[in-house]
Amino acid sequence: MKPTFSLRLRIFNLNCWGIPFLSKCRADRVKRLGDFLNMESFDLALLEEVWSEQDFQYLRQKLLPTYPAAHYFRSGIIGSGLCVFSKHPIQEFTQHVFTLNGYPYMIHHGDWFCGKAVGLLVLHLSGLVLNAYVTHLHAEYSRQKDIYLAHRVAQAWELAQFIHHTSKKADVVLLCGDLNLHPKDLGCRLLKEWTGLHDAYLETRDFKGSEEGCTMVPENCYVNQRELEQFPLGIRIDYVLYKAVSGLYISCKTLKTTTGSDPHSGTPLSDHEALMATLCVRHSPPQHDTSPTRGPAERSPLINVLREAWTELDQGMAQARWWVTISGYVIGLGLLLLVLLCALAAGGGIKEIAILLWTPSVGLVLGAGAFYLFHVQEAKGLCRARAELQHVLGRAREAQDLGPESQQALLLGQQEGEQS
Amino acid sequence: MKPTFSLRLRIFNLNCWGIPFLSKCRADRVKRLGDFLNMESFDLALLEEVWSEQDFQYLRQKLLPTYPAAHYFRSGIIGSGLCVFSKHPIQEFTQHVFTLNGYPYMIHHGDWFCGKAVGLLVLHLSGLVLNAYVTHLHAEYSRQKDIYLAHRVAQAWELAQFIHHTSKKADVVLLCGDLNLHPKDLGCRLLKEWTGLHDAYLETRDFKGSEEGCTMVPENCYVNQRELEQFPLGIRIDYVLYKAVSGLYISCKTLKTTTGSDPHSGTPLSDHEALMATLCVRHSPPQHDTSPTRGPAERSPLINVLREAWTELDQGMAQARWWVTISGYVIGLGLLLLVLLCALAAGGGIKEIAILLWTPSVGLVLGAGAFYLFHVQEAKGLCRARAELQHVLGRAREAQDLGPESQQALLLGQQEGEQS
Repeated sequence: MKPTFSLRLRIFNLNCWGIPFLSKCRADRVKRLGDFLNMESFDLALLEEVWSEQDFQYLRQKLLPTYPAAHYFRSGIIGSGLCVFSKHPIQEFTQHVFTLNGYPYMIHHGDWFCGKAVGLLVLHLSGLVLNAYVTHLHAEYSRQKDIYLAHRVAQAWELAQFIHHTSKKADVVLLCGDLNLHPKDLGCRLLKEWTGLHDAYLETRDFKGSEEGCTMVPENCYVNQRELEQFPLGIRIDYVLYKAVSGLYISCKTLKTTTGSDPHSGTPLSDHEALMATLCVRHSPPQHDTSPTRGPAERSPLINVLREAWTELDQGMAQARWWVTISGYVIGLGLLLLVLLCALAAGGGIKEIAILLWTPSVGLVLGAGAFYLFHVQEAKGLCRARAELQHVLGRAREAQDLGPESQQALLLGQQEGEQS
Repeated sequence: MKPTFSLRLRIFNLNCWGIPFLSKCRADRVKRLGDFLNMESFDLALLEEVWSEQDFQYLRQKLLPTYPAAHYFRSGIIGSGLCVFSKHPIQEFTQHVFTLNGYPYMIHHGDWFCGKAVGLLVLHLSGLVLNAYVTHLHAEYSRQKDIYLAHRVAQAWELAQFIHHTSKKADVVLLCGDLNLHPKDLGCRLLKEWTGLHDAYLETRDFKGSEEGCTMVPENCYVNQRELEQFPLGIRIDYVLYKAVSGLYISCKTLKTTTGSDPHSGTPLSDHEALMATLCVRHSPPQHDTSPTRGPAERSPLINVLREAWTELDQGMAQARWWVTISGYVIGLGLLLLVLLCALAAGGGIKEIAILLWTPSVGLVLGAGAFYLFHVQEAKGLCRARAELQHVLGRAREAQDLGPESQQALLLGQQEGEQS
């Protein structure tokens, strides 16, 4: 490869808000999205919340001439909602479904039924291996009292681990998606620190779009304004993250977001804003200094963020175990009640009431049993993430004692002086 | 590294049959296993069916001087049962829980509750990166009418994909575990073809142990003899598989199995036989020809095995969709019954019967609803595996048309002429 080699990648990301029957003007928005993607002809378009497979199939047909390769990531009961359209052939793809994803009994939130996941695509472009990841983490329904915080941290960790272990031979790593995490949130910092990914919004010198790069803005007519009450400018929860390895340099030439309206017709494409990035991969460092231009660097040392995540997962485990204990007691009480009812019915005393109460009691025992099993599994999942995190924390501390080169080797999962 | 470089690895694998309250002489067997592992001092001991975390903690304490590193892979409700003890430091570990793993309503089989998984350890030995995987696939309860076949094929595919995507930078790949697959079973062939792993039993020139390398033999007093009725010599379902990449050569110097009894005291360590392999990694090809010495090569071209697996997954999907339809009808009938009962109760006709039937009807609708959701998720999981497989099949056909070099590149997930 020549030293003057450079690869330009135009990337599109959008959370499409494609909930059948619930999302407003879905058909029209999907149609306009297809038109827009066809017109812009990106290298890669990564979409989230395409919950209906029919919408994917419609887009696939519509985009076929411009994006010959496409994939829909199926998982869970409803599906992951993730899909991708590519101008270039997809060499390989696979996916990883997150172990923890909310609670099945929180039906009104629905995340558990989706089977949220991370999808991986491997592309070969101009002799380089590009690993592109698309993901969507558990939604945040209340910032003040977020009962899903431990799950989202565990998902961020699993996502980071999946990228870490599957991208060791990639030249370029790209992650797009709706992380449901603000830039300074623990999960976001954990992900960036452990994978070494850079945030396109913080890195680019040419940004056009919504204020502070927000991807949910009050100007968008589909946004629930109450959700943004605390954030007058909006929130930034959708990301384009990237890194290059093996002696390559990557920079974000331009980053654009939509600003609450369709770039052409005025009506927005979704309740989220789309991200459009132009990335440039080179063999030589970019001419301009790429140090952050907007706001302070949102990076904290790996050890601190690992320690913080460890604490969060630990609290989540304590909470899960508390539910296990409570449901254990309810099972015990339910069984006691059943025995009492049997005795009453056999004694002939208040037979009718005993028979009437029998079924709700069985229901109580079964319900509490399911609850018990679910939270046992939750505690195991959190314990697993905590154990992996603790191991990395231990190694990070060792590396800190040994110096900066060891820290770099740790991030790359390599030995120092390893043969290539 | 010198051309004379060689690395010897002594590996131990055992399905420990460690079910609390159910497995015979568990405490005694775990104690003897600990003594044996301490005495033999393997490089790596990979264990399955260590269902009790107390057993793992006991072994961890006992083995600490000989095996300073250990990890227990937590997942599901009961746990994956997988753990590992290593003489060398573990650099990294993670795990992947299989998407499909039997049915929750098959409580007597229990696999669904385990959260069966594959565990990954990364070790750095003499400048080489060793990726060691340990796994345990869904049990086979009936060979004649195996309702879990599609799930086991999907698990074998997920396992192969996990290894394929996480081992791209490894020098040596090792997979040990109870695959619950006979050597010529579809899942086993699929795994070997897609990962390029070699079977220690078929490759070694120095094998000592049970006839035909069986790992469940009728001589073992813990084995349910009825399960082996069709197989007078026993069955081979536990494996040591390996490969070396990047210009290295790996061979299996010796392979031993136990033969239905403890190597010292006579009473077996488990209902499975232990596998003990000595592997040798070199920079030059082994002096002896390592072509298979026992039985015909159990390899079939990638395309054939992919096609066969595709058909199996497709049949599994049809079955899952059939269950979705049936449970959909049951939900409909249950709802109709509920409406009728409400009408009867309101009419005042046979009020008591209506009230008595109300709760079972609600139970029916809820049960069928859960069944419906489970099989929708099953169909999605099978569809996902089939889509990945179909993509690889397409690329394998293209590679076949282009020649053997392209086929090699496909297996390695690399481009031809890729920079290193």
